[in-house]
Amino acid sequence: MRRFLFVFSNSGLNGIIYERKSMTKIEPRLLKGFRDFGPDRQVERQAMFAKIQTVFERFGFLPMATPVLEYKDILMGKYGDDEKLVYSFKDNGDRDVAMRYDLTVPLARFVALNQNYLTFPFKRYQIAPVWRADNTQKGRFREFYQADIDAVGTSAQLADAEVIACVCQALSAIGFSKYKLRLNDRRNFDMFGENSASIIRSIDKFDKVGMAGVVAELESKQVAPELIDTAKRFLEGSIELPKRAELEQLRSNIIALGVPEENIVIDPSIARGLDYYTSTVFEVIIPDLAEYGSVASGGRYDNLVDQFSNQSLAAMGGSLGIDRLFEALGETGNVAFQTLVKVIVINFDPNLEQQYLTMAARLRSEGINTELYYEPAKLEKQLRYAESKNIAHALIVGADEAAQGVVKLKDLQTRTQIECTFEEVIESLK
Amino acid sequence: MRRFLFVFSNSGLNGIIYERKSMTKIEPRLLKGFRDFGPDRQVERQAMFAKIQTVFERFGFLPMATPVLEYKDILMGKYGDDEKLVYSFKDNGDRDVAMRYDLTVPLARFVALNQNYLTFPFKRYQIAPVWRADNTQKGRFREFYQADIDAVGTSAQLADAEVIACVCQALSAIGFSKYKLRLNDRRNFDMFGENSASIIRSIDKFDKVGMAGVVAELESKQVAPELIDTAKRFLEGSIELPKRAELEQLRSNIIALGVPEENIVIDPSIARGLDYYTSTVFEVIIPDLAEYGSVASGGRYDNLVDQFSNQSLAAMGGSLGIDRLFEALGETGNVAFQTLVKVIVINFDPNLEQQYLTMAARLRSEGINTELYYEPAKLEKQLRYAESKNIAHALIVGADEAAQGVVKLKDLQTRTQIECTFEEVIESLK
Repeated sequence: MRRFLFVFSNSGLNGIIYERKSMTKIEPRLLKGFRDFGPDRQVERQAMFAKIQTVFERFGFLPMATPVLEYKDILMGKYGDDEKLVYSFKDNGDRDVAMRYDLTVPLARFVALNQNYLTFPFKRYQIAPVWRADNTQKGRFREFYQADIDAVGTSAQLADAEVIACVCQALSAIGFSKYKLRLNDRRNFDMFGENSASIIRSIDKFDKVGMAGVVAELESKQVAPELIDTAKRFLEGSIELPKRAELEQLRSNIIALGVPEENIVIDPSIARGLDYYTSTVFEVIIPDLAEYGSVASGGRYDNLVDQFSNQSLAAMGGSLGIDRLFEALGETGNVAFQTLVKVIVINFDPNLEQQYLTMAARLRSEGINTELYYEPAKLEKQLRYAESKNIAHALIVGADEAAQGVVKLKDLQTRTQIECTFEEVIESLK
Repeated sequence: MRRFLFVFSNSGLNGIIYERKSMTKIEPRLLKGFRDFGPDRQVERQAMFAKIQTVFERFGFLPMATPVLEYKDILMGKYGDDEKLVYSFKDNGDRDVAMRYDLTVPLARFVALNQNYLTFPFKRYQIAPVWRADNTQKGRFREFYQADIDAVGTSAQLADAEVIACVCQALSAIGFSKYKLRLNDRRNFDMFGENSASIIRSIDKFDKVGMAGVVAELESKQVAPELIDTAKRFLEGSIELPKRAELEQLRSNIIALGVPEENIVIDPSIARGLDYYTSTVFEVIIPDLAEYGSVASGGRYDNLVDQFSNQSLAAMGGSLGIDRLFEALGETGNVAFQTLVKVIVINFDPNLEQQYLTMAARLRSEGINTELYYEPAKLEKQLRYAESKNIAHALIVGADEAAQGVVKLKDLQTRTQIECTFEEVIESLK
């Protein structure tokens, strides 16, 4: 018999409610573009985040957190064509607020707000979700994680080299050593004069739409034919890049930091869509997984903090598209569900419940991740549960074992079991 | 000279913009009730999260993640008087959406959506932020983290004992061993008949407003005088609790799991404000930090999943108010800023830059968190930077050392330095 103890207080209710007789049912469903990660995936996902965090900390970046909501005007004017994808609304206090769209603009706001208390260069990492009301038909998600590192308050090229090398090593750490790093410098686009911002946005699409697509878009923007011709030759590589020497120097520093030479190319088509980059820009693709597009990117943004501050603070940053990488990991078969639980205490005899609790407590105090089955169910049911969760061992104590002061330890892979003392179990599981 | 390369595209802009001559400045500011955590605090905060996670995994709970945004109707009707604090808005597709208010209702939605694929009992933990448009003058924050564990699909009392013991041990793990656990059972309120929901909400305020406050509120709600009298005697402890025996059994199981007996009381005034609890309820306070109120709480909610599903799934959960605990930790002086960086490579001579990069790469490959100073600044400036970040060692190589194949390692606490080979440095820092 189903009971419905709860009555909805209809005052605050304006969603879709299905009323059937005395029942008040709500259909469980997810918003399009949003995902759950059950334990089968989240264990691996967290392990991936931890590996990336370790690499970030190796390079001396420290963690930081900013809120999900910001005043809307903090975010606006930074994202070019994509600004319409920012989630924004009026809060209860009639303030215009927005959900963070990336981790860079909130960082710039943070630095401007706290500049008198910070030591520069300010090096931080942040691994956190962002929200974009993107078209989900392109296989994009509306909530996804980014893993960012930034060095604010330095214009040294070593900062560029370190940020880029760190991003590349994070990719290696999670299993992607066959990546391709593409470098460019936004100042190479200065030859396009006052049209450069618009032309950059079109050139940024080169990978997806090809030369014909870029030319068509430039034409539709009514860009002068001679500039379109320059853009074509630029993309073909037949114009020498004004910043070639700087890019070669950067490349050599990245190699000194351990990135394999053959993984790095200088590529004039790399422009990046965001408005705020000023010189170095980079992106990383995995050639074997080209359909995922760029899995990491970044660049130098020497004027972003200025928008919030009278103090000029040059900055360099990089970002890993961590959820895209997680999907890609699944595709390469590198993800296997691993449980974190080592042993299950079988609930065999209701009279021994206190002993089961004490054993579970002892195992845990020895650092062994331990489950206790909650109901005194049939042994087979409990073992099936353990197997479904990939738990390797079951600890079985019935009245006989309790009387003799022994326990049974069953290996759920081999289906063999031994009888021994509880202390021996602890030693063997530790 | 300051330059302003970026022009705001005014199309998408409706925030407060300060225009001064050619400048477009946005005042950097945080929304009320929202906080940044700079590295000085976030390093410790992450360490606290990790300790809690370790305890959760010891008890066999596995990680899970749900989105920040849900359909609004999923969240409504679950939070009693506080429902008005849910952040909600219409998204770009004109859907009514809401930011998650707790981690329990999204879990219930997840379980209902995936019930055919899950193994029960389904045990998960989630450490994640929630949002409540609360009154900030009460010292409350609008974005704060919760750390939750739940066991769904079991009505066994062992689940209650384990969830509560796990929460208590997480508190111990982060430095709060002097806590007080207060237990009650919502069924004790059945004596109030059909008025119980309303009376529970008033009794829940007993800690804050005292007996007179509870009575006044019940009177203002026009509760019958004889029920108010019952409520008074109930709170005074002069009515025997109908569920006393069950609570004593629960208490004894919690003790078997390692929670000190003297930390546990059965307390009829514990009601908890949320509508969805059905029997066991608990909260934890730190008597030395009573002003923080309850720092952990939870209970059994055997009918919440039913609201989304035709399958009935009993459940037990607990939650740590992790940000409140972090504030409390600061107050007890248990938080000290620790850097994660072990050594800084001093940038001394521009001609040796490639060598500095190579040394930094080598140190990192040995697992040593290493900073490289980006600019060839004065030695004193670099050492001051390192000290401000609590970095313990500086590695100094100038032209002389490079020629001799040695390095200098300076201890920034003692201000002493030794000359040795780079390999010796690695050995001593590892």
